[in-house]
Amino acid sequence: MILPIFFMLSFLLSSSSCNALDFCVADLKTPQGLAGYSCKKLELVTVDDFVFSGLHTGNTSNLIKAAVTPAFTAQFPGVNGLGISIARLDLAVGGVVPMHTHPGSSEIIVVIQGIIDAGFVSSANKVYFKTLKTGDIMVFPQGLLHFQINAGTTPALAYVSFSSPSPGIQILDFALFGNDLPSNIIEETTFLDGAQVKKLKGVLGGTG
Amino acid sequence: MILPIFFMLSFLLSSSSCNALDFCVADLKTPQGLAGYSCKKLELVTVDDFVFSGLHTGNTSNLIKAAVTPAFTAQFPGVNGLGISIARLDLAVGGVVPMHTHPGSSEIIVVIQGIIDAGFVSSANKVYFKTLKTGDIMVFPQGLLHFQINAGTTPALAYVSFSSPSPGIQILDFALFGNDLPSNIIEETTFLDGAQVKKLKGVLGGTG
Amino acid sequence: MILPIFFMLSFLLSSSSCNALDFCVADLKTPQGLAGYSCKKLELVTVDDFVFSGLHTGNTSNLIKAAVTPAFTAQFPGVNGLGISIARLDLAVGGVVPMHTHPGSSEIIVVIQGIIDAGFVSSANKVYFKTLKTGDIMVFPQGLLHFQINAGTTPALAYVSFSSPSPGIQILDFALFGNDLPSNIIEETTFLDGAQVKKLKGVLGGTG
Amino acid sequence: MILPIFFMLSFLLSSSSCNALDFCVADLKTPQGLAGYSCKKLELVTVDDFVFSGLHTGNTSNLIKAAVTPAFTAQFPGVNGLGISIARLDLAVGGVVPMHTHPGSSEIIVVIQGIIDAGFVSSANKVYFKTLKTGDIMVFPQGLLHFQINAGTTPALAYVSFSSPSPGIQILDFALFGNDLPSNIIEETTFLDGAQVKKLKGVLGGTG
Amino acid sequence: MILPIFFMLSFLLSSSSCNALDFCVADLKTPQGLAGYSCKKLELVTVDDFVFSGLHTGNTSNLIKAAVTPAFTAQFPGVNGLGISIARLDLAVGGVVPMHTHPGSSEIIVVIQGIIDAGFVSSANKVYFKTLKTGDIMVFPQGLLHFQINAGTTPALAYVSFSSPSPGIQILDFALFGNDLPSNIIEETTFLDGAQVKKLKGVLGGTG
Amino acid sequence: MILPIFFMLSFLLSSSSCNALDFCVADLKTPQGLAGYSCKKLELVTVDDFVFSGLHTGNTSNLIKAAVTPAFTAQFPGVNGLGISIARLDLAVGGVVPMHTHPGSSEIIVVIQGIIDAGFVSSANKVYFKTLKTGDIMVFPQGLLHFQINAGTTPALAYVSFSSPSPGIQILDFALFGNDLPSNIIEETTFLDGAQVKKLKGVLGGTG
Repeated sequence: MILPIFFMLSFLLSSSSCNALDFCVADLKTPQGLAGYSCKKLELVTVDDFVFSGLHTGNTSNLIKAAVTPAFTAQFPGVNGLGISIARLDLAVGGVVPMHTHPGSSEIIVVIQGIIDAGFVSSANKVYFKTLKTGDIMVFPQGLLHFQINAGTTPALAYVSFSSPSPGIQILDFALFGNDLPSNIIEETTFLDGAQVKKLKGVLGGTG
Repeated sequence: MILPIFFMLSFLLSSSSCNALDFCVADLKTPQGLAGYSCKKLELVTVDDFVFSGLHTGNTSNLIKAAVTPAFTAQFPGVNGLGISIARLDLAVGGVVPMHTHPGSSEIIVVIQGIIDAGFVSSANKVYFKTLKTGDIMVFPQGLLHFQINAGTTPALAYVSFSSPSPGIQILDFALFGNDLPSNIIEETTFLDGAQVKKLKGVLGGTG
Repeated sequence: MILPIFFMLSFLLSSSSCNALDFCVADLKTPQGLAGYSCKKLELVTVDDFVFSGLHTGNTSNLIKAAVTPAFTAQFPGVNGLGISIARLDLAVGGVVPMHTHPGSSEIIVVIQGIIDAGFVSSANKVYFKTLKTGDIMVFPQGLLHFQINAGTTPALAYVSFSSPSPGIQILDFALFGNDLPSNIIEETTFLDGAQVKKLKGVLGGTG
Repeated sequence: MILPIFFMLSFLLSSSSCNALDFCVADLKTPQGLAGYSCKKLELVTVDDFVFSGLHTGNTSNLIKAAVTPAFTAQFPGVNGLGISIARLDLAVGGVVPMHTHPGSSEIIVVIQGIIDAGFVSSANKVYFKTLKTGDIMVFPQGLLHFQINAGTTPALAYVSFSSPSPGIQILDFALFGNDLPSNIIEETTFLDGAQVKKLKGVLGGTG
Repeated sequence: MILPIFFMLSFLLSSSSCNALDFCVADLKTPQGLAGYSCKKLELVTVDDFVFSGLHTGNTSNLIKAAVTPAFTAQFPGVNGLGISIARLDLAVGGVVPMHTHPGSSEIIVVIQGIIDAGFVSSANKVYFKTLKTGDIMVFPQGLLHFQINAGTTPALAYVSFSSPSPGIQILDFALFGNDLPSNIIEETTFLDGAQVKKLKGVLGGTG
Repeated sequence: MILPIFFMLSFLLSSSSCNALDFCVADLKTPQGLAGYSCKKLELVTVDDFVFSGLHTGNTSNLIKAAVTPAFTAQFPGVNGLGISIARLDLAVGGVVPMHTHPGSSEIIVVIQGIIDAGFVSSANKVYFKTLKTGDIMVFPQGLLHFQINAGTTPALAYVSFSSPSPGIQILDFALFGNDLPSNIIEETTFLDGAQVKKLKGVLGGTG
């Protein structure tokens, strides 16, 4: 059937004027709101807002021999409001992602290279711990303590997806020893010995 | 029982100062956010923000002989944030609402005049198709391809309600043939013949 | 391009086995859960689960000369979980939908025939009140007291859509006077006179 | 194990730059949005945004001998977006919190001092009514009419928690009699007698 | 105005048959679902499902001199699905609620008796720490490490409200040392010394 | 500090009895509900419910030379209720994932091997199209038509993450031509020529 273009377009325009939110690329200059940022104007949005090339490498030249390179809203504004984000995880030989939580986000890891020991602990205090081979995936439910360790003799590479565009990361050691939380409070609330607290505060730059 | 007004009002004022959000009439001049617009100041809100008289007619003088006249946030700012909106659907004799989806919204149609053939296709590829008489309703689950056709010999009128204040509409033919999506990509991803793609691009103004 | 059917189908089957929830037609025999009912088995679902013909009439032969005929989950299981439902509203001459709330649902009315006085009261105690003509729509934000009255000299017909598949209805007079709430409690918490309470309890069948 | 601080910090900084939203202390000067206010800049947030000392007393020197002192977003910006808030409830001897609803929020009361009669009415019109002793708790589901009355001979104190950071409060008598809702509309939609309406309008400052 | 009861009731019955979910008292014998339990049949629900008297005392006769007595769905089925719950917190002199998180729930504490040191640590590693006096409240955003300590010389009593009917509690020491998480994994992921790990495993019953 | 184990455990047990839902591994034998399946009993859950080894290969020996191997709730019950899932995407040389939508889920692709042309079309009818190199990621907002094509001369491998544990997949050609949707309805609602419809129905097994 033949449809003259001019007639169809009048229909098209009326429906496209509905301002529906297919997506909401973050305008990082707006004040952050409860659910993320305000949307970049539609006429300024290009495909490059939805594509990210910042996950090509990860620098593991640090003591934990690990790198988490994020593609969260702050780095990849196209995910703003879409309920998902991703990061690259590099673990050199001996590398560790220390015990941590994501306060409001679940995570799936897919192992691309190498072997990774991964685990989490539930509220009921049970340990779910497994050695993941290349190609395996594992899910870490939201808010629970978990960790990843390179369990092999070669560098490991993985991608970790999150159920939030801006998943927070609370690393246990930094939370306890990398700030001004008073040592006596740490001792009382963790049952750690004073010497241990002092030692880790020294390493992680904590005061108090 | 008799209650002196001056005492009661002190109680009233303290509770009404809570800034609760009964509603959030869209201030369309604010940047659009993930969940809609910021709220018009309460002192500027009147009953006319909650009433809309723009659905009295629909102009079907176009090739598809159909009109979808929306009362979404952009036209009817009072629905901002309330999880619901509505539109008027006019189908002249022979009129068709072409195959389309609402990316994140379910829809209920109620037929006011005439007879309408309506249907949707599920992810499991099953067709749910029915002829609706005046007074019938049908629900179209979110995100699935669906359509409506005037199946009678008189104009049809319906109202369509949505589970979102700003439901997007992706009309299949416009998405495929009404933009610059390269013809070879269309052919590879839809299995349509090149001649068919070229013909519809011509009708719908597509390039590439 | 030619695609032999047998090869394609293997691809199809693997993707359709994902058990995705396009919809969840209520199996009303299952125990009701927080978010509705469990789903009817997919192989038992037909188009008639998504179409409803129970809104063709409304019986206004009662004292308030009004009828609200619902298409909620209990009557129309296809809306289960879809965040939307609809009802037919008939108002004979002099008909009234008394002051009521929907505890967790917003509502849009569209007037099909006649003239309707409608209004709601906000938490800040402001009245939003308007006479709606045929074709007008009005939105009532969730949880607020509102009402509809036939304001004309002919019967009025409207459809009311809700942002929930099972919107509750709390009618003020029934809540106060149609049960065993003790009269002294009513008087203390509403400031109504004892005689008024007694009279309406008599009318509405209240005890206590 | 010993970890040189300088290496660790490079890891720390890259993860902490993710702009995750642990919380969103309301910046009350921004326009209110659908889900609350925009967030105060993180560098301006202090512990005092999360602590509130405004619930130490409640002034019951009014006719209903009751005070609801809120710690909602407007008073306690730290709860913005966290899905919870609290208020202090004082009931002098004879004090009453009149029949009211919270349009989109559930409530739990915990009685700290005294004895309180509390109840709510369901959509199905059933009354759930109980005398609460010190230490008892009761939950009031969202959007339903409920009330609290000092049932003892000493002042009562309670705290009420809400499932929203900004729960609205619609007090029945204010909604009906404390504004310009026309008397004839009130009579038609509540079945109250004209004299009763006139009397309460007089007490509560209503016009029309 | 006089309304014969028999006519009104027909209207009432049709609206009350809508099966709306005002509430969903947990039927704890049903399989637990994603959002809680299935609902107890409405005809079996009484006011006692919404009232709980199990928070009258807390037993602090343990080494941490603290007791958290919950009124969560498992103890208080009336909160199922209502987005809120509460617990009683007793802290004897010297009592401590050790460092812990609630994986998906925010918390407000209100201090009823005594003085409490409370604090939390953000993802950005900042400490928000304050001494709370009787009558003060503090909010702890979801998923972040926090603690409470009796900071006075008398027993302290508080109530803690949660933005979930079933908030999980992950206590750091139990998660690390009270199960079979291998010691070498703990050391690698927390940087704690082996002797410290061994000592706390001994205290908390950990193996491995 | 030394803590005798027997005292601590009494505290532990009282808090762990709260039945909190850290996770809800799907019991696939229960009736599917609105938000997924009921939970497997906690005592039956093991780490293998959270680890999946079914994504090691994808079989592209089909005409489209593509395979989408899912780890959704049906294959990987551990993701039930966690708001996230993942699939493996294999594209042989010349392989194509045809034009499709996920009705209620956003998607992120990360390219592991090869080069992939990917794109989506917005409601406003704009094409967002890009050639992705190994290591690139792209996000596809929920409900919009999109596709992926191997753009290189070697096989391509990617992982696709979804913001839902059970994302539906509606493949355009199957929805139109692989069922009993009547040919005249297809023609009227897509403007395709009858010959084209007949041809593709033949290929894809459609009837009617």
